[in-house]
Amino acid sequence: MTKYLDEIREKVKEYLPPKVRVKSIEFEGPQLVIYVENPQELAEVDIVKKLAKDLRKRIIIRADPKSLKPPEKARQIIMQIVPEDARISNIFFDEENGEVIIEAEKPGVVIGKQGSTFREIMRAVGWSPRVVRTPPIKSKIIDNIRNYLLSVREERSEILKRIGERIHRTSLIDEKWVRVTFLGGSREVGRSCYLLQTPESRILIDCGVNVSNLSSTPYLYVPEVQPLDALDAVVITHAHLDHCGLVPLLYKFGYRGPIYLTPPTRDLMVLLQLDFLEVAGREGTNPPYSSNLIREALKHTITLDYGVVTDISPDVRLTFYNAGHILGSAIAHFHIGEGHYNIAFTGDFKFEKTRLFDRAATNFPRLEALVMEATYGGPNDFQPSRKEAEERLIEVINRTLDRGGKVLIPTFAVGRSQEVMIVLEEAMREKRLRETYVYLDGMIYEATAIHTAYPEYLNAQLRDLIFYHGINPFISENFVRVDSSSKREEVISDPSPSIIIATSGMLNGGPVMEYFRHLAEDERNTIVFVGYQAEGTLGRKIQKGWKEVPFPVDGRREVVEVKMEVETVDGFSGHSDRKQLMNYIRYLNSKPEKVATVHGDESKCIDLASSIYKTYRIETRAPMNLETIRFV
Amino acid sequence: MTKYLDEIREKVKEYLPPKVRVKSIEFEGPQLVIYVENPQELAEVDIVKKLAKDLRKRIIIRADPKSLKPPEKARQIIMQIVPEDARISNIFFDEENGEVIIEAEKPGVVIGKQGSTFREIMRAVGWSPRVVRTPPIKSKIIDNIRNYLLSVREERSEILKRIGERIHRTSLIDEKWVRVTFLGGSREVGRSCYLLQTPESRILIDCGVNVSNLSSTPYLYVPEVQPLDALDAVVITHAHLDHCGLVPLLYKFGYRGPIYLTPPTRDLMVLLQLDFLEVAGREGTNPPYSSNLIREALKHTITLDYGVVTDISPDVRLTFYNAGHILGSAIAHFHIGEGHYNIAFTGDFKFEKTRLFDRAATNFPRLEALVMEATYGGPNDFQPSRKEAEERLIEVINRTLDRGGKVLIPTFAVGRSQEVMIVLEEAMREKRLRETYVYLDGMIYEATAIHTAYPEYLNAQLRDLIFYHGINPFISENFVRVDSSSKREEVISDPSPSIIIATSGMLNGGPVMEYFRHLAEDERNTIVFVGYQAEGTLGRKIQKGWKEVPFPVDGRREVVEVKMEVETVDGFSGHSDRKQLMNYIRYLNSKPEKVATVHGDESKCIDLASSIYKTYRIETRAPMNLETIRFV
Ligand SMILES: [Zn+2]
Ligand SMILES: [Zn+2]
Ligand SMILES: [Zn+2]
Ligand SMILES: [Zn+2]
Ligand SMILES: [Zn+2]
Repeated sequence: MTKYLDEIREKVKEYLPPKVRVKSIEFEGPQLVIYVENPQELAEVDIVKKLAKDLRKRIIIRADPKSLKPPEKARQIIMQIVPEDARISNIFFDEENGEVIIEAEKPGVVIGKQGSTFREIMRAVGWSPRVVRTPPIKSKIIDNIRNYLLSVREERSEILKRIGERIHRTSLIDEKWVRVTFLGGSREVGRSCYLLQTPESRILIDCGVNVSNLSSTPYLYVPEVQPLDALDAVVITHAHLDHCGLVPLLYKFGYRGPIYLTPPTRDLMVLLQLDFLEVAGREGTNPPYSSNLIREALKHTITLDYGVVTDISPDVRLTFYNAGHILGSAIAHFHIGEGHYNIAFTGDFKFEKTRLFDRAATNFPRLEALVMEATYGGPNDFQPSRKEAEERLIEVINRTLDRGGKVLIPTFAVGRSQEVMIVLEEAMREKRLRETYVYLDGMIYEATAIHTAYPEYLNAQLRDLIFYHGINPFISENFVRVDSSSKREEVISDPSPSIIIATSGMLNGGPVMEYFRHLAEDERNTIVFVGYQAEGTLGRKIQKGWKEVPFPVDGRREVVEVKMEVETVDGFSGHSDRKQLMNYIRYLNSKPEKVATVHGDESKCIDLASSIYKTYRIETRAPMNLETIRFV
Repeated sequence: MTKYLDEIREKVKEYLPPKVRVKSIEFEGPQLVIYVENPQELAEVDIVKKLAKDLRKRIIIRADPKSLKPPEKARQIIMQIVPEDARISNIFFDEENGEVIIEAEKPGVVIGKQGSTFREIMRAVGWSPRVVRTPPIKSKIIDNIRNYLLSVREERSEILKRIGERIHRTSLIDEKWVRVTFLGGSREVGRSCYLLQTPESRILIDCGVNVSNLSSTPYLYVPEVQPLDALDAVVITHAHLDHCGLVPLLYKFGYRGPIYLTPPTRDLMVLLQLDFLEVAGREGTNPPYSSNLIREALKHTITLDYGVVTDISPDVRLTFYNAGHILGSAIAHFHIGEGHYNIAFTGDFKFEKTRLFDRAATNFPRLEALVMEATYGGPNDFQPSRKEAEERLIEVINRTLDRGGKVLIPTFAVGRSQEVMIVLEEAMREKRLRETYVYLDGMIYEATAIHTAYPEYLNAQLRDLIFYHGINPFISENFVRVDSSSKREEVISDPSPSIIIATSGMLNGGPVMEYFRHLAEDERNTIVFVGYQAEGTLGRKIQKGWKEVPFPVDGRREVVEVKMEVETVDGFSGHSDRKQLMNYIRYLNSKPEKVATVHGDESKCIDLASSIYKTYRIETRAPMNLETIRFV
């Protein structure tokens, strides 16, 4: 490690102009941080880029603490330099890292043409500017996360240094092999968890919970994952609880290492984990961890944007690619050894362009193996096209509104809600749908706020709409937040037609219950299912056409008569259907040699594996939990 | 554990007659030992048998040390009680265990009709008799092993107590699954090593060396096997080095637990391990361990005869069955949970009756899964019948002897040598082969001595021949041991025809080299290959018909002209051929649900797996090293 750093110091000296006075060089997490006395002299970004490329490292230049202007003085200077139309909403200082965080409605203006304003700030105040977008809808979660991370910044800095040292430790073993142990989510949906192993490294991919059976956790007690603190990294593909619900538990059992995820996944993950605890508390079940462990996990997060190649262990580089499933969802691509092997885990992915996201990425530089989801991997798992689905949804809503009824759409907070919101906003803007209030209840509003904070994670059309046409569909005035039971009562008793999007998606709790109870008995109303209803849920009973359904009220069971219209609109899934799964393999620009199917019922995993083998002559497997596949 | 022992104490009280004064009850290794003040009163074996059956434990009754006659007095009493024709050759006392070991040429006479003499001894001396056969050929190794084990009996007793406590620990996990990790010897021959795992237990099956590449050891550094001391047991199927060559290394790396094997496997294992070190020393390669680790391993051995059901962990029972491959070779059958699952590892096995052994056992009480060898698993791997092979061998030898030549048969020390010896002895006895001296050089004589010490491990015909017809073919006077280089010179220079069986089997070292060098240039002589010649060996070159072969003499290379006749006689293999492998599955009395093929080249493992699937519709796999298969 020291020897390695010495080599790097030599390289840095070679590259930097002699006038640049380097104070120290350190690894912080996966990044190489160069502390410079006079960072103004380094405003030439090209030198740093070249150095980064040559070292194959991510490099950050920071000012030596002594060369920083006092915060109040610096704040004044920044306000003077940055044009007013950047609309700065907040400036705060991270003394530990010598950074000034500038929150602005137009971050591009703070950065300036080719970074000119950015560099001017740096030269004038010494602090290294970090520019953050002011979200158009204020997100409490994002605020809380930022404040929390600032409050623990000293500890975090220590953590990052420790992680950095571990990543850049010297390799000891010269053997080469790659294997994956399946610890959960194989031949089933729920508790996704996979362990990627090389002679040098152990990396956990996802650590989900089986929400319908809390006692069935991933097999974290087997020796491959023990001791947890010997793991090099945890990588999270996306924020759904079946992929990240048990991450805090890892810190209870001794893990102290990093969690790699995209920035939106970090925020949505915290939102959903907190909600998981709240729901458990409300239902009187014993949650597997408490909120301080959510914070402990958060303290160890390292965010990576799509496409950023990052060392996460001596022989593994991680790159995230768009998965098209929910905001920030990623395909995790691992490059092992120097050109030795490449394996990607799709997580949940959608290989079709949706209102929110581009279809999942297929352009990996190299790819020898793929671990892919198979939720709709059965031979008959075809969904209607997005277009058909949208048309049917509009038609059902119009019909209901026309007869003076209300439309109730139960959804999960993250993903489908925002998808439906975009559809409704456009249809109203284009007058295909009568303008009405769309009430958002449950976590949907908060989740939407997080979507607006990361427009760069949405697809090109939506970004274009937001940035160049000034239309942010999420902040349409037709959307109304419901955040109290009095407001909810108001929405229900208001005689005029409206649309209500409320959680939970399968009517097993959440505000949707209250709406359903009151709206069910009026035949002018309609309930529209846009997502999968699991066997045994109230949603499923209603969907199947039960005319009377049992309904829990304050611990008792009432019976609710269902007179409202019941509709199901397929085609809004965030998962690839059978055809998309098969096409995904075809469209990969680098054909894998081996494919493993997971995240689906046993028969679907097996059928998809066998179809991929028959169609493409690729070796496939549908592993069981607790099995280990050797890839090379 | 204590609670469990308390329960057992209650049971024991219930069963034993009140006059029996129990002093203490303890676990020693897998056995329950009952120390009794007046064991004479327990001479009724039936009570103990019943108790054992009810407790499902192996039970040993031992005298309380205080009730034992002084050794010299006891020795006199024993000599008086036992009829002279038992021909006692040695009596020694194991004070630690209160046992007297009686070595006799006819152990049956010491035991008496239905154990009458045995019980009389016990009543008279207090010591618990253990009757051991005086081998007809004295084995140095067996002597050394017995003496060594006696010399460490106190430490061994401690070890057995510790093991006993571990075996009978209370179970903590109520989940149920069974999986196997393949650590070596999969899709290859050499370094066999498999890890059987349940939520409760981890059991290593075999730990072999790749003799042709010492650096390629089983993958013992992966987390599944770490820390080694957490393993519950090591089980050895047979003594060939590709199955037990690295067992001593386990004790270097921290393992302190038991090694389960049959008694002949223990002795042959030590013989072959010591030879392994000697050869390595001679060739100047660095052996992976020293002889003190062979002793350390020996100290931890627990021998089990075929058919003895033994607890080896809280949820696993081990039973060995005849594998028909070499002396003491076993199929290891594991019963997991109470009726939960049964899996067997064949090790190397022969599903054809040979001169020495019955064909491999097929009668398992239950069997859900089988891990089987595939050495000759290829579609064309058929061998001639044993009968044809024998006829051809006799024919070749007769022809050579008739023309006044010598026959040189290179073999491994264990297995094929003894097989050939039996064939030659019978042919000479039946006058189908001219009577000649058969010289045995290398470890063959010592290995043969071990065979004579365990007649109960030979097949019924051979035992019948030895016990009821008084013909022990191994001690025929035609067999002559060669144990010095002067004797070897004598054999070579003697002008009369003879047969020489010498190691090593592929002419890559050993005394066979000297014979070959001197006999090659006389065209009256014949070299007969009865075993596989690996690519690159001198044996292979000769077999292929090279007329001049390079030959190492004192570090230089000479050329030896090959004028002698070169013959290959197939059909003496200790492995099942393709037809026998396929038939084995058919003849199993309990059809397995899953079969994994190992111990064969990649293509053979895969072809055999696929043929078994096609023929029997059993799910099959040809796993790779480092993979884990879940069985249930
Ligand atoms: Zn998902
Ligand atoms: Zn999922
Ligand atoms: Zn999903
Ligand atoms: Zn063998
Ligand atoms: Zn073998």
